[in-house]
Amino acid sequence: GSSSSFSSKLLFRQLFEKESSTYTYLLADVSHPDKPALLIDPVDKTVDRDLKLINELGLKLIYAMNTHVHADHVTGTGLLKTKLPGVKSVISKASGSKADMFVGPGDKVSIGDIYLEVRATPGHTAGCVTYVTGEEADQPQPRMAFTGDAVLIRGCGRTDFQGGSSDQLYESVHSQIFTLPKDTLIYPAHDYKGYEVSTVGEEMQHNPRLTKDKETFKTIMSNLNLAYPKMIDVAVPANMVCGLQDLPSQAN
Amino acid sequence: GSSSSFSSKLLFRQLFEKESSTYTYLLADVSHPDKPALLIDPVDKTVDRDLKLINELGLKLIYAMNTHVHADHVTGTGLLKTKLPGVKSVISKASGSKADMFVGPGDKVSIGDIYLEVRATPGHTAGCVTYVTGEEADQPQPRMAFTGDAVLIRGCGRTDFQGGSSDQLYESVHSQIFTLPKDTLIYPAHDYKGYEVSTVGEEMQHNPRLTKDKETFKTIMSNLNLAYPKMIDVAVPANMVCGLQDLPSQAN
Ligand SMILES: [Fe+2]
Ligand SMILES: [Fe+2]
Repeated sequence: GSSSSFSSKLLFRQLFEKESSTYTYLLADVSHPDKPALLIDPVDKTVDRDLKLINELGLKLIYAMNTHVHADHVTGTGLLKTKLPGVKSVISKASGSKADMFVGPGDKVSIGDIYLEVRATPGHTAGCVTYVTGEEADQPQPRMAFTGDAVLIRGCGRTDFQGGSSDQLYESVHSQIFTLPKDTLIYPAHDYKGYEVSTVGEEMQHNPRLTKDKETFKTIMSNLNLAYPKMIDVAVPANMVCGLQDLPSQAN
Repeated sequence: GSSSSFSSKLLFRQLFEKESSTYTYLLADVSHPDKPALLIDPVDKTVDRDLKLINELGLKLIYAMNTHVHADHVTGTGLLKTKLPGVKSVISKASGSKADMFVGPGDKVSIGDIYLEVRATPGHTAGCVTYVTGEEADQPQPRMAFTGDAVLIRGCGRTDFQGGSSDQLYESVHSQIFTLPKDTLIYPAHDYKGYEVSTVGEEMQHNPRLTKDKETFKTIMSNLNLAYPKMIDVAVPANMVCGLQDLPSQAN
């Protein structure tokens, strides 16, 4: 639950997929006659749930976006496109993945009068981005940052696969996320302990990894001794093509 | 995540316990020098997580409240009291349970300048209450209703144990919850599909059970064919004494 994101035009929902502990985010501008909406990090297994909610709320889904090429679950973007033709998949150009629309630093993705700005936050993967709501007074306040696996609540994503780099992750977080206003809400792609939201100020003070100096952070990250990611060999190839391996456009 | 609850003084967090799919709610008045806080429906297994968060946020926990005597998990209220002496457990008088403070319809529970009003919503159990934030403009807007198992998102609690009554649940929801402003946020005690929040208007329109007439509702509820509640024989006796069966004050 959010602490205090208020905007009369924003409809916002955080949705949870238990198996991979993934958060999917629904944002819509309900002040616009079409009620245009976007999803961030949809999961293939919960596409029907998400579409049911979108339908009940009378929203029009425009974009199905990813913060990065996930290694732990199959994205729902491809499935969403087959069920709702017209939906555009969105990912960073730096991800090297297929999609309908590629974004990079400074780009904006709009639904009605609400927009997300794109910040490059590589380090967990080479193509990770963070989507941040606009800073103007007519945008939701406080701001919201969808950090993917760059910043997790009291944690961060691993940096030992997918072009990851602990040095780069540290730089990304400190230059692109911790420079946001302290009351900016942090909405991560995952949580494993039942937390849903944090703030920039809170993570700057209490994140057990990212509050350290860079060398200590790099030492922590290189000593995690994590298991090989269970789903990586299935999920990454699938996610490079929007979760639909059997798309005619795919070169096998 | 909430759609739009805004108040500069309210700090609000929804927390999830995966095993029983229980939501615990943390509310605090951070405009007050003491940052007084309360927890609704804490779970024994996540007490340490909750206390860590309360500590990091610099809050002072005053009340550990339950919406009802739960049958699916052991409440964290007793454990919270042993770890933070001074915390008061709160439950409805109608629950028949032990607690430090008993509440009934119309009572208010305050932390700083924020308060919850108590509404009797029996039917899932005989002693169920819903806690609702105040209606005044200086209270969080839109209002928030912590409905326990009376209204779940697109569902409701079972009515075949603990003094349950489908007739009574229907009356409770229609007279005490669906009469709230339509934008009132509904925060239930559980969700099993990854939803976190709904609104009164949304449930009035899309709840597959509670949108029916009373007779149809009663028929639905009597034909659920649910299994005997797995945890009931452990959880209910424990929860009647705040989750601490070995308290010296307990008569065994
Ligand atoms: Fe990831
Ligand atoms: Fe219950």
